[in-house]
Order: sequence, then C-alpha cells, then structure tokens
Amino acid sequence: MTQAIMNYGEKIKKDSLAYNLHSWSPQGGLAPKVITKAEGIYFWDADGKRYFDMSSQLVNMNIGHGNKKVVEAIKEQTEKMAFMGPGYAFDVKSEAARKIVEVAPDNMGKVFFTNAGAEANENAIKIARMYTGKYKIFSRYRSYHGATYGAANLTGEKRRFPSEPGIPGFVKFFDPYLYRAPIAFSDEKEATKYYISQLREQILFEGPDKIAAIFLETVTGSNGIIIPPEGYLKGVRELCNEFNIMMVCDEVMAGWGRTGEWFAVNHWDIEPDLITFAKGVTCGYVPLGGVLVSKDIAKFFDDNTLWCGLTYSGHPLGCAAAIATIDVYKEEKLLENSKRMGIILGEILENLKTKHKCVGDVRYIGLFSGIELVKDRTSKEPIVPYGNDPEKIMKKILGMLSSEGFATYNHDNILIVAPPLTISEMELMEAMDIMDKVLDYVDNMIS
Amino acid sequence: MTQAIMNYGEKIKKDSLAYNLHSWSPQGGLAPKVITKAEGIYFWDADGKRYFDMSSQLVNMNIGHGNKKVVEAIKEQTEKMAFMGPGYAFDVKSEAARKIVEVAPDNMGKVFFTNAGAEANENAIKIARMYTGKYKIFSRYRSYHGATYGAANLTGEKRRFPSEPGIPGFVKFFDPYLYRAPIAFSDEKEATKYYISQLREQILFEGPDKIAAIFLETVTGSNGIIIPPEGYLKGVRELCNEFNIMMVCDEVMAGWGRTGEWFAVNHWDIEPDLITFAKGVTCGYVPLGGVLVSKDIAKFFDDNTLWCGLTYSGHPLGCAAAIATIDVYKEEKLLENSKRMGIILGEILENLKTKHKCVGDVRYIGLFSGIELVKDRTSKEPIVPYGNDPEKIMKKILGMLSSEGFATYNHDNILIVAPPLTISEMELMEAMDIMDKVLDYVDNMIS
Repeated sequence: MTQAIMNYGEKIKKDSLAYNLHSWSPQGGLAPKVITKAEGIYFWDADGKRYFDMSSQLVNMNIGHGNKKVVEAIKEQTEKMAFMGPGYAFDVKSEAARKIVEVAPDNMGKVFFTNAGAEANENAIKIARMYTGKYKIFSRYRSYHGATYGAANLTGEKRRFPSEPGIPGFVKFFDPYLYRAPIAFSDEKEATKYYISQLREQILFEGPDKIAAIFLETVTGSNGIIIPPEGYLKGVRELCNEFNIMMVCDEVMAGWGRTGEWFAVNHWDIEPDLITFAKGVTCGYVPLGGVLVSKDIAKFFDDNTLWCGLTYSGHPLGCAAAIATIDVYKEEKLLENSKRMGIILGEILENLKTKHKCVGDVRYIGLFSGIELVKDRTSKEPIVPYGNDPEKIMKKILGMLSSEGFATYNHDNILIVAPPLTISEMELMEAMDIMDKVLDYVDNMIS
Repeated sequence: MTQAIMNYGEKIKKDSLAYNLHSWSPQGGLAPKVITKAEGIYFWDADGKRYFDMSSQLVNMNIGHGNKKVVEAIKEQTEKMAFMGPGYAFDVKSEAARKIVEVAPDNMGKVFFTNAGAEANENAIKIARMYTGKYKIFSRYRSYHGATYGAANLTGEKRRFPSEPGIPGFVKFFDPYLYRAPIAFSDEKEATKYYISQLREQILFEGPDKIAAIFLETVTGSNGIIIPPEGYLKGVRELCNEFNIMMVCDEVMAGWGRTGEWFAVNHWDIEPDLITFAKGVTCGYVPLGGVLVSKDIAKFFDDNTLWCGLTYSGHPLGCAAAIATIDVYKEEKLLENSKRMGIILGEILENLKTKHKCVGDVRYIGLFSGIELVKDRTSKEPIVPYGNDPEKIMKKILGMLSSEGFATYNHDNILIVAPPLTISEMELMEAMDIMDKVLDYVDNMIS
C-alpha cells in the first residue's frame, strides 16, 4: 500500500465522520471501512484488502457488483433521458412494469413504483386500506418492514420504537419461530395448526370487519431468516379469504431469486393480494421499489382514486436497471444457481451445526440463510441477550470474520449468510471455511 | 410523423395503462403523454411535439434535462461502483455531504441521506423527537411534505387523508396566506404579528414541553407558492428558541436555487435546526434526498444512537449526481440566473394580473411562482372550489396550455410556473406569451 492510497482512504473516512450521519449508531467512535472497488461477489477497501460480500450488502446485491449488462443499461438511459416525471408514460417505465408482472404470481396485475422497500410497504398499507375500506393492519413481531412511519409501525422489532407513539390500528401477532417456540411441536404441521388458530382468534378479537391487511415477510429476513412451516402461508391465505383481508407479502429481501424462485411465495404456491419488493429488482444499482397489486385491486382503481404518489415513482434509471437486471437473472440462470448453491450451502451449514457447539440453529432457503449462535445448545440461551450486546460479542465475531475477508452483518445473535446468487461452489466453500475457522474461536469463547 | 413512431408511442401508452399504477388518479380514462426525449428546458412527446417544461417536472429539474456534466458523472460512477451499502464510507458519499454542508447555512453540521423528500421529512421528525425528547410535531394546513405516513401526517392538505387515522401528536396551524387572510392587514408586518402571536398561543395550549418541532416549507410549494411575510420566519425562529423547539425548514422544492439562493431561508437570514431537501440536489437525475442537521444536533448523536436507516442511504449514483449538480449550479451561475430571470418573470406576472380579470393573485420569488385564478377579482372566489373541480376547468386550462406547448400542473385554482433555472429571457417571454394567450380564453370562460 502506497502512502498516497493511505491518505486517500483516510481523507474519505475523515470527511465521512465529519459530514455523514451513519445509520443505527451513535456517531462517536465509528470507524467505517473505506470501500474503493466492488466486482462480482467481492469488494475492496482502501488498503486493497478484498472481502467476500457474504451478505450481498444488505441482501440486495443478488447479481453481484459491476454487472456489465446493468451498468450499460444505466449508462444508456442516463444519456437518453435520466428523468421524466411520474405523470408521463415512457418506454422503460412501461417495460419494467410489464416484465415484473410477467415473473410475478399469475394473479398480479399492475405495479406502483417507489424508491425502495419502506415506501413500497407504505403504499401497500394505503392501497389495502383504500381497497377494503377497513383500517387495521396486522404484522408480526419478528419483522422489519422499513423505517418510515408506516413501515416502522409495521415493523415488530425494536427499530419501530423511535416511530412510536404509533399509528392507531396497527396490531402485532407472533410468528412461527419454531426454534424458540413456547411449545415443543411434534412437526411443522402441528406448529402451523397452532399459529393459524392463534391468528384466527386474534382476528376475531380485533374484528375481521376492521382489518384491512396482514403483512408478513414471506421468509423473515433481518430478524433471522425464519422460514414458514409447511402449510402456514396457505393457512394465512385462507384466513384472508375467509375475512376479506388483504394478504401482503413483503418480498423486499426474499424476492428476486434470493430463495431460488422469483418470489418466495412460489415455494408454497401462494398468491398474495399485494407483494412489496425492492432490493433485488435492481440489486441497488439504482434505488427502486414497488408494490405489485392483484388484477382485482388494479380493477378497483380504474374508478377509484389511487391516493399514492412520489416525485420519483417510475424513475427512468431505476426502470432501465430493473429491465436489465431481470434479463440478467434469466440469461445467467441465477435462480437455478441460487437453488443449486443453496443446497450446498445448506449442507455446509448443517456440518457447521454438527461441528460447533456455539451453533444453536441454522436456517436456509436458496442463498438466504442464518446461523443462530448460542451459549448452550440445550438451554438455547442466545450468545447475546435480545436487543442488547453489552460486551460487544457479536461485533467481535463480525470483526474476526471481516479480518479474514468475510463481510456480513448480524441481527442479535444471528449471523446472516446471503452471498450474491452468482457465487460458485468453490467460492462458497472458500468463504464458508472462514466461517468454520471463526466458529472455532466462538466455541472457545463460550466454554 | 411516421407510422412506426406512432405505433411505438401507442405501444408504450398501452403497456403503461396495462401495467403501471399512476399517481393521484383513478386509472380508467387516463391518457398519459408518451415522452421520448428531454433536453434543456424542453421535452418531446412520441409525436415529436415539443413542450416548454414550465414546472421543471415536479419542480425538480432545476439545471434542465440532459446536462452533460451530470450525465457524465453518473455514467462514470455507474462504471466505477454503482452501489455500496450505507455501513461503509466511500469517496462520493463523503464529498457530496461536505459540498452540501458548505452551501448550507453556517450552523449546519452533517447530512443524513435518504432517497427523496418524503423520507427526508420522515427522518427529520424522528431526529427532532430523539434530540428534544419531546413528541408533538407542528406543521401547517397549506402544506405538502410527502405521502409516506410520517410525511403525510405533516402534510396539511387533503393528500394526508389516506394516511389517517393519524399519528398521535401531530398538530396543524394556519399559514400566513395573506391573499385570503381572514383579516385585512395593513401591511406584512402586521400580518406577521398576528400569525406569530396566534402560533405562540397555540404552542402554549399544546404544551411547549411536549413540542419537538415546527415544520414548514420555507416557501410553500405545491399549495400555491406562498411566500412568508417580512419577519415571519424570524418570528418562528424566536418562538423555537424560546421554547426549545426544533425549527425544521422543508426546502425540498424551495431549495437549490429555485428562489435564487441555495436555500430559501437565505432570503431572510434564518438558521433552522434542520433542513430537509431532495429534488434540486440532483434535479432527479438520480433519486436523492436528505436531512441537514445543525452542529448541535450532530454533536448530540456522537453519544446517542441515530435510529435512522435505509438500504440506499448515501447511494453512490445519487451522491455522484449531487456533486456534479452542485458544480453545475456554481459553474453555470444558475442562482444568479434564477434571480435575474425571476425579476423578469415577476414583471410578466404583474402584467398578466393587470391584463386578465381571471388572475386574482400572482406570487413569485426567483423562478418559483404561481398564478391564482378566480371567477371574480373582488370576491376572490376561486375559479374552482377547494379540493374539487367537478367541471374539470383546471384540466381544460392545462390542456390548452399543453396544446400550445406549455407544460405545467396546478393545485386547486393555482397554476405553477417554475421553469428550469437555465431558461433565457427570450425563452421565458416566448413561454409566457402562451400563458397570456390562454388566460384570454380563461377571461372569456368566466364572463
């Protein structure tokens, strides 16, 4: 490393600490890594050190960094027409919507474009309320739907607290988190029966004629990759049918090949009334999100005002990036790779669980996975308490991974493992060897 | 026009109506113009017809369409690193924040980046609450702050209704809209005295120890270009000082040269505690918004967690576009042109008011202006009632303007005139001649 590069990196960090407010942290004592390059499944810091991007940034970089096709599409659209307002029609906005509807479940009709996932959920709340004429909104405790007020009030975990006192009519229910369920279920079917009957009872007590929507992450993301037990989503769908409640699946993380399908609902053959998406639709090359609505809902708004809008709805660069990104998923067969690598990742994770006493549970679907760290496998006591890490244990573990070139993040005691869908078997094994090595340290930490 | 072009445009429109949900409208019977090209102060539809962009799209396209410097900066950054997550530092994120702080009022310290204006206001609410430990939020009736739940609950006009029942603690007060004030003030000073004393009384009744922030658009935008009377903003600033309330100026529309200054607060030498911005910071070439916080607030978050975050906070393309856009404002002397053309526009508007009986009021500052249409100048009866236009009169007027090549939009009975800051005197006069001609028709409509 030359002195010039060193100074360059130091200057960027200094300015960043001086002028940028950084997310979810006190700002004092932050030492953000300075990143200067990103390509495929890797990125590099200002010292030239390379990292496996094992969380695809914030589970958005599905096609990998620097994909030529998407880069070219953005450059071309920038040259042609970087911006046009939402009141007009133009080629890439029409085409992006059509391509998204084409890969969505069959019942889906139209797309309302937003800047990202939080706004997608915001608009889904409004659409569900307008369509049903009802106002209560159900969502789950172990969930993250975004940090704007509506999305934060959907969110069940602690990141909603800064947005409280909350919006009237938002109701939380418990998710089927079988690893720590209050009851020892004999199988998934039994768990599903319990959770669906509990949800049904809560619907009755909250008033079915007041409930507009049930929001859920099809596969819970930030809160620990929680995969619904067999029959659960079907059960929710049936409750929604029974009580005329909109089923809204938040596929901001789980969509776009992350689980090996276009949308995670495809695994269980579910047709929600609305799907919210973002992240993988452009992989973050340009901010874009949106709400998919069913044909029935789309028809309703032929004669009723859609009270939704934002300056950058259907942004040309976002739409151009989405078109190219969808083509990349298809041409590079990334859903297939996600599925195939997901099977290998699953085997690796099961081996890690067998080998390391600090691993309480591993959960995985496609290339969407989490490793749950515990102090003790029998008691399942998490390695750090809920919402708190006074000894900065998780930070230490992430630091060890990072110093070995494995970049990811955590939620409480859970490590996210969700690499770009372009990863090869060899790369996956090389990266997971680092995890194996670090888990040896963690085993020592807890003994 | 060739048949091929015709079919191309028709196909885009057909797909747009089939697959896109369009803002703030019933979808049936929509006929969005298909736009194929945009350059400088003009854009073109699929039939090759050219339009003066006299609203700068949604008052965002300040530097005009297709600016080469910004286009090149986006292309270069796309090639280099289209995305990096918010947890990292990188060159353009540091530099964009530094450049924004440099042109902001002296008391400003740091920037939190968002995707756009609604999210900027969402985060400003949270920051004001965290910093003060108080929860009530004041904002004004004639205002639009965005359509996500927090921003919509700030908003005073009818676009907030779909986000009600609202968030507890949001309080509305009346704005100094002198043209329709309930009292005939002898001058601006007297009006200011009235509105500030009313606001002070409302603060006392709502509890100063419960009020976190007062939000206001420095110059009210969508709701009719309402310019604060002399001393008003200073009065609000003093109330905020007296009661330890954060003064938050929403400069999403009014900022970035629109009024002839970097920020509209500069006209009155006011230092708010927070400024929210978007639109002009990149002119929409890439979605970007943000919150500027004072040095005091920035310091508070050294030791306190900033409970804010979003995947695309500090997006590389948005930051690269912001850097180039700020350079363009400086190099092309667009603030100066905004001021100079603003004076000419003001004269033209005053002439239109003298000439046309349908013009009740004209309001202008820099290139930010509105024409208020009335049935009768004495009674001031608006040409369409509040929030309602059963005979689609305003739609007809916009249609006439548009068919003559003058593109803009309205809010109730008010026409927005806010062209790109790059407009020349000759272009401005040519465009406003169209307005003159159409106002002749409107004069006839009301006689």
